[in-house]
Amino acid sequence: MTREKKNKPSKDLPLGFVDRQEKELLVRDFIIFNIKEVMIRYGFQYLETPSFEYSESIGKFLPDKDRPDEGVFSFKDENKWLSLRYDLTAPLARYVAKNYLEIPKPFKRYQLGKVWRNEKPGPGRFREFLQFDADYVGTKSLQADAELCVMISEILEKIGLNKSDYVIKISSRKITEQLFQKIRLKDNQQKLITLRALDKIYRLGWDEVKKLLGEGRKDKSGDFTKGANLTQNNIEIIEKELKKKSPDTEDLIETFKIFENYKFRNYEFDPSVIRGLEYYTGIIFEVNLKFDVKNNKGQVIQFGSIGGGGRYDNLVSSFGNYDAPATGISIGLDRLVYALMQKKEFKIKQSKPVMICVLNKNLLKEYIDLQKLLRDADISTEIYPGENKLKKQMEYANKIKSPAVILYGENELKSGKPILRNLSSGKEKTIEIKELINEIKEII
Amino acid sequence: MTREKKNKPSKDLPLGFVDRQEKELLVRDFIIFNIKEVMIRYGFQYLETPSFEYSESIGKFLPDKDRPDEGVFSFKDENKWLSLRYDLTAPLARYVAKNYLEIPKPFKRYQLGKVWRNEKPGPGRFREFLQFDADYVGTKSLQADAELCVMISEILEKIGLNKSDYVIKISSRKITEQLFQKIRLKDNQQKLITLRALDKIYRLGWDEVKKLLGEGRKDKSGDFTKGANLTQNNIEIIEKELKKKSPDTEDLIETFKIFENYKFRNYEFDPSVIRGLEYYTGIIFEVNLKFDVKNNKGQVIQFGSIGGGGRYDNLVSSFGNYDAPATGISIGLDRLVYALMQKKEFKIKQSKPVMICVLNKNLLKEYIDLQKLLRDADISTEIYPGENKLKKQMEYANKIKSPAVILYGENELKSGKPILRNLSSGKEKTIEIKELINEIKEII
Repeated sequence: MTREKKNKPSKDLPLGFVDRQEKELLVRDFIIFNIKEVMIRYGFQYLETPSFEYSESIGKFLPDKDRPDEGVFSFKDENKWLSLRYDLTAPLARYVAKNYLEIPKPFKRYQLGKVWRNEKPGPGRFREFLQFDADYVGTKSLQADAELCVMISEILEKIGLNKSDYVIKISSRKITEQLFQKIRLKDNQQKLITLRALDKIYRLGWDEVKKLLGEGRKDKSGDFTKGANLTQNNIEIIEKELKKKSPDTEDLIETFKIFENYKFRNYEFDPSVIRGLEYYTGIIFEVNLKFDVKNNKGQVIQFGSIGGGGRYDNLVSSFGNYDAPATGISIGLDRLVYALMQKKEFKIKQSKPVMICVLNKNLLKEYIDLQKLLRDADISTEIYPGENKLKKQMEYANKIKSPAVILYGENELKSGKPILRNLSSGKEKTIEIKELINEIKEII
Repeated sequence: MTREKKNKPSKDLPLGFVDRQEKELLVRDFIIFNIKEVMIRYGFQYLETPSFEYSESIGKFLPDKDRPDEGVFSFKDENKWLSLRYDLTAPLARYVAKNYLEIPKPFKRYQLGKVWRNEKPGPGRFREFLQFDADYVGTKSLQADAELCVMISEILEKIGLNKSDYVIKISSRKITEQLFQKIRLKDNQQKLITLRALDKIYRLGWDEVKKLLGEGRKDKSGDFTKGANLTQNNIEIIEKELKKKSPDTEDLIETFKIFENYKFRNYEFDPSVIRGLEYYTGIIFEVNLKFDVKNNKGQVIQFGSIGGGGRYDNLVSSFGNYDAPATGISIGLDRLVYALMQKKEFKIKQSKPVMICVLNKNLLKEYIDLQKLLRDADISTEIYPGENKLKKQMEYANKIKSPAVILYGENELKSGKPILRNLSSGKEKTIEIKELINEIKEII
């Protein structure tokens, strides 16, 4: 490294963080617009909690260690630890606890916001995510669980997906509960390891998961993950139960009946759906995309889930002495945007400005008048924003993918007819100012 | 504190952070929608950089200390420090440096995003802010500076402000530069202290600022701030110069001419505008609201600035060996939302759901059909989302400010005529399902 370079600050981004470009942001805005419309129709309240919470409030990592920064971004503030939220559910539980007397019961809210995970960054692994969450707090009604699935399917169809493009996979924590009783598994730590192992069925397949249910598994990198230490017999019972085709738990039977009332059929019962989080207590579901998605190398990949959720009847009440059964859904918007941008039929309009060339600095007033005329007609327009020769101006116009430039010099001013150059066809046309708006609208 | 309480996690938010409610968020969305419309018209690219940057990239606080967390939230990541951005300008400079070869030159981008300041929290002092920034990088043209002022005024008028509701105060760093030459001030640290002192004219008034220009000032709490140690004579020269009524710097004279071309007159020359940041090199401006705004105690306050900006020709190039003169504007959206919500004439529509009462659980299918009918007509609707008696259901409907409830029991089902109860008038009406949509649209 040269001495000179050493003195300059880094131009790089920390691993796991990315810059997002216009096209992606417009797709995201389009999705968010539709989410908000559906949320209003469904009567959810719009809420925003801050990025930071006291570390102890968001539960996962209590400040019993010197620095509770494993998995979350934390830092010490006077005497207490603060953390950046790692999901939107823990802050909701804190919000409900803080405002318990004032909020309606049941309480339905939705939130859009960034969450952060301080995990070991790797290729394609991010540490900042945009999430959409919708939750019901204070109701045991399975109508709520069912409606979350109907709602997300309405959102997905509004943004342009067909029924064949996605499916909601559904299971229930009651199934694993029954299973644990059957194999007499009582140790909570062992249960948790078992659930985490089962959560990997989709990604690793049964053969690898069985290693995680047994003594453990060495992955490709050589890292060894300790297993749940279940007996071979119990592992087989689990496998058999989780390969069942129809549910035998009351909650699922009832939920599927409610789906019938909604004429909602775009779901699958899938007992291998586990969802990692330990706080689920009932129905769990996962939203899966089925259309082809490619990775950065252009290979079609198993894209999998864009989110999911389920019932968590005990989380909110951990803040206080009240009963607050709840159910919710959480969607990873960055992943949804990434997939949607690759869907063949999907298009989004990106408005690029028409550029007025600066042929003569003394005509700035005329350029500003023309610019105003076009902008008032809702045409994205700019006067070349620098001080350069025409060649440089044209390079700029091409770089920003301008649809057309306007050449308006002294001659054109005299005749009252600027020249409009279509930058995709290369054709030029001399036209009256009053015709300009219509002419440009045909190009863009 | 009881033992029980001790076991529960905190329900409180860390100081300086707040939960934001629906009404505020809708006003914010409305502002953002208008910002985006204007940004498209003006031909700015939409960009989003992540929340985190390497601490060294965002400049202000280089990691030469053991823990560079003064003023910013920083975390150690393996061997490097990361920081949450404290503004959107430093990340823009990093972005331009990283992508210098690919971006158009000049480069115009806008960004909306949270920023964080790890400052001593106090009443009304926040540590998380939503900002809107628009910048030009790579142009010295004063047309750019002028257009930022015109653009923000267009945004403010689109969201409902009159010309008398706001003003853009304008000055130039060239004025203070000339002043420093005049009084032969050369020491950079002393210049900085002088600028910081002058930045407080609006808040503290000249008498207090003069103390800061001299030996220093003790504030109400007894804290002493060291001054710039200028002579009495020089302090008087400064005061006289900054009370001038018209500009004598070239950049301001030229910018005011450009304003004339835009027919933009809603600005004031005000040499006491300083803006704290040391990186400004030319034009500086501040957006001030003039209508009455009350604080949390109901007292009308001097609301002051919602943001501002100016020219910073040396910041971006600090990342590399290239010339990147720039100018930009930054608006604090939380403050703008707070003010706009208090403007008398300003109204925003909040859709509250019509509620279908659950009179008979066996009629769930009928309720769902009815709900679908209303939602498809874009009426915010929900079936009571719990399992409770009618009295509780009605309490809920009132709590969520539902405009109307629908009573649809077996009798109504037989006659095909549900009962619609208007919750603001208390009146009930028995009507056919096909009339329901029109009837509700008259109520909401």
